Amino acid sequence: MDVDALRAITPGCKHRLHLNNAGAGLMSQPTLDAMTAHLRAEAELGGYEAADAAAGQIADTYAALAELLGGRPEEIALFDNSTHAWQAAFYSLPLSPGDRILTGTAEYGSNVYAYLQVARRTGAEVVVVPNDEHGQLDTAALAGLIDERTKLIGLTHVPTSGGLVNPAVEVGRIARAAGVPYLLDATQSVGQFPVDVEAIGCDFLCGTGRKFLRGPRGTGFLWVRESALDRLDPHVAEIRSAVWDGDRGFSWVPGARRLETWENSYINIVGLGVAVRQALDLGLDQIGRRAIGLGARMRGLLDDTPGVTTYDLGAVRCAIVTAKVDGVPADEVVTRLASAGVNVTATEADDNQLDTEFRRVHPLVRFSPHYYNTEDELEHAAALVGAMVDKRV
Amino acid sequence: MDVDALRAITPGCKHRLHLNNAGAGLMSQPTLDAMTAHLRAEAELGGYEAADAAAGQIADTYAALAELLGGRPEEIALFDNSTHAWQAAFYSLPLSPGDRILTGTAEYGSNVYAYLQVARRTGAEVVVVPNDEHGQLDTAALAGLIDERTKLIGLTHVPTSGGLVNPAVEVGRIARAAGVPYLLDATQSVGQFPVDVEAIGCDFLCGTGRKFLRGPRGTGFLWVRESALDRLDPHVAEIRSAVWDGDRGFSWVPGARRLETWENSYINIVGLGVAVRQALDLGLDQIGRRAIGLGARMRGLLDDTPGVTTYDLGAVRCAIVTAKVDGVPADEVVTRLASAGVNVTATEADDNQLDTEFRRVHPLVRFSPHYYNTEDELEHAAALVGAMVDKRV
Repeated sequence: MDVDALRAITPGCKHRLHLNNAGAGLMSQPTLDAMTAHLRAEAELGGYEAADAAAGQIADTYAALAELLGGRPEEIALFDNSTHAWQAAFYSLPLSPGDRILTGTAEYGSNVYAYLQVARRTGAEVVVVPNDEHGQLDTAALAGLIDERTKLIGLTHVPTSGGLVNPAVEVGRIARAAGVPYLLDATQSVGQFPVDVEAIGCDFLCGTGRKFLRGPRGTGFLWVRESALDRLDPHVAEIRSAVWDGDRGFSWVPGARRLETWENSYINIVGLGVAVRQALDLGLDQIGRRAIGLGARMRGLLDDTPGVTTYDLGAVRCAIVTAKVDGVPADEVVTRLASAGVNVTATEADDNQLDTEFRRVHPLVRFSPHYYNTEDELEHAAALVGAMVDKRV
Repeated sequence: MDVDALRAITPGCKHRLHLNNAGAGLMSQPTLDAMTAHLRAEAELGGYEAADAAAGQIADTYAALAELLGGRPEEIALFDNSTHAWQAAFYSLPLSPGDRILTGTAEYGSNVYAYLQVARRTGAEVVVVPNDEHGQLDTAALAGLIDERTKLIGLTHVPTSGGLVNPAVEVGRIARAAGVPYLLDATQSVGQFPVDVEAIGCDFLCGTGRKFLRGPRGTGFLWVRESALDRLDPHVAEIRSAVWDGDRGFSWVPGARRLETWENSYINIVGLGVAVRQALDLGLDQIGRRAIGLGARMRGLLDDTPGVTTYDLGAVRCAIVTAKVDGVPADEVVTRLASAGVNVTATEADDNQLDTEFRRVHPLVRFSPHYYNTEDELEHAAALVGAMVDKRV
């Protein structure tokens, strides 16, 4: 991987030391150019007319995402964010009193609120599977909890709150054996390392463009396994999803697009397609090796800094690194690094309710490098953190 | 209104004769510049960091929309389109068996599908209020239909299918007198002429940025009257809408933002704010006078063209004009005008089910000028249509 060349086509690398890829990755020049070109086309031709002219590019965004995930274009639906994508699957899954949703402590905050709401609304029950000794979802416990009441396994692949990579493949094996629908929130994993729906064995998978895929903000996608589509009763209906029967009834359009909503930002959809193609061209194996390697390096540097403690869980850890700095609140670390040109962020208890219930460590400082970062950048960031500790002493 | 100056800052005016403002209006250079600047900031600073830096601009989008509609910023929620905005209100309204939704024949297709779906799901009933002699919703019939079963009046202000302006103020008077929630779909009216929530007396109003407001595609907004907020039980829950109670429960955030979804395209939100400010600076009264005047002129030109018939209903008609050309199918008119540099579109039966049930006239050719169009442009478009008729003869 030619990191210098990749940095040269990433304008942000000249301006910031960006370690907030778990927030939003830096877009590359080809992505920016595609967005700017489509915006210009909309301005000159008209918004609908530009979309017609870009029909091939728009179709390629579906195709590229399908290729990325190992699915088919008809199994992809596009949204304005990962939450809408996740909701389109979850809220469309019929649940009854006594049904059980199994999830883990790493579950994303929005998913947790949705579980709690639907449990209250339907009488279903939310069961939090305990962690194993590595701090990841205990797959033996999961297998033991599954029974005829289990109507969904909802798993966050990589949490927003740390470097954990949950054992998604092992969970998929258990879900398939039991015939239980399996919804994987891959918002923080897609684009960071290979995520293949066949290898994982999930039925529904959501993600976003803006993080490790380095696409535009305001983009999200859902993959729905064709054989699982009929398990969903779409929670909303509209002209994009429905086909009129000529009277007072309707049926659903074929494929995952029955979950989409009219209309869309095609600037963002076109940009997303270019970003996904770029990831495919680089190769997710190669991206994953480097991103995870930089995560390990960042974690090591912080662990070697006196007064700094890292908090990442899991047998397998990724490019997200979380830490506390003795005597300096997380938000202050973020602010001080920002003023030194370094982008990091802090985790929030409210966005990670079950993890907070489990270990009460938030807020943590979150460092999230990606493949275009350099080892020098990580060392510089770690040195700045170290200096904060020294100054305090 | 200095039309020449307004055209000079609208790049599309140099390239196309744009009569598809009911699809998407042409963006102005200030809107494009704001979007491009925010995209550059995202590329250089990072996506989250750029949003932090633009916090004032983002807040102003809420403020500008509130000013436009006559509400307050806390009553505004932002979405990626008008449909999501409408759904956030409609699907959050509790309905029970026997409850009635009253709507009209001009109702937008997506709303109709949602009514039918919820009726099937809850046992509520959809009642279509007949039209009066002008082809607009018959307010006397509406008043006569209201009883204790009526739980919603859902009205499309201006349909996607023609020049009708429904009597929204009179409907509001009836809704208020009966204490019935009133959801106004103002997607085609906001930005075209003054739309004031106090004058109308609605409880919920949705709109889009991309049409007569000339904002970006992929933007929508919902205004929720503060006193009506508690009538809604938000149909989805997530970190943007909910506040964790520290255990396994949550409450809603204050105001209309409990209906929003994290996260968003801030390129589009920033652009929307600039487009709304531009409309406010021009003045909606002035915009409305000119847009409606151009609509009347277009309608008159087409009515005066032998072999062309217009189909717009209503006692009050707006800038949307629909017509049939003898012997030339609507889609072919659209294609031929496009090849002559003129943007129009065709209405669709499926997107206007109740109107189709009522009068079966679709597809129609839809011309939708806006204030930046010129009388010369309308004459040129009408002459091109006339030539199609002549050629046939």
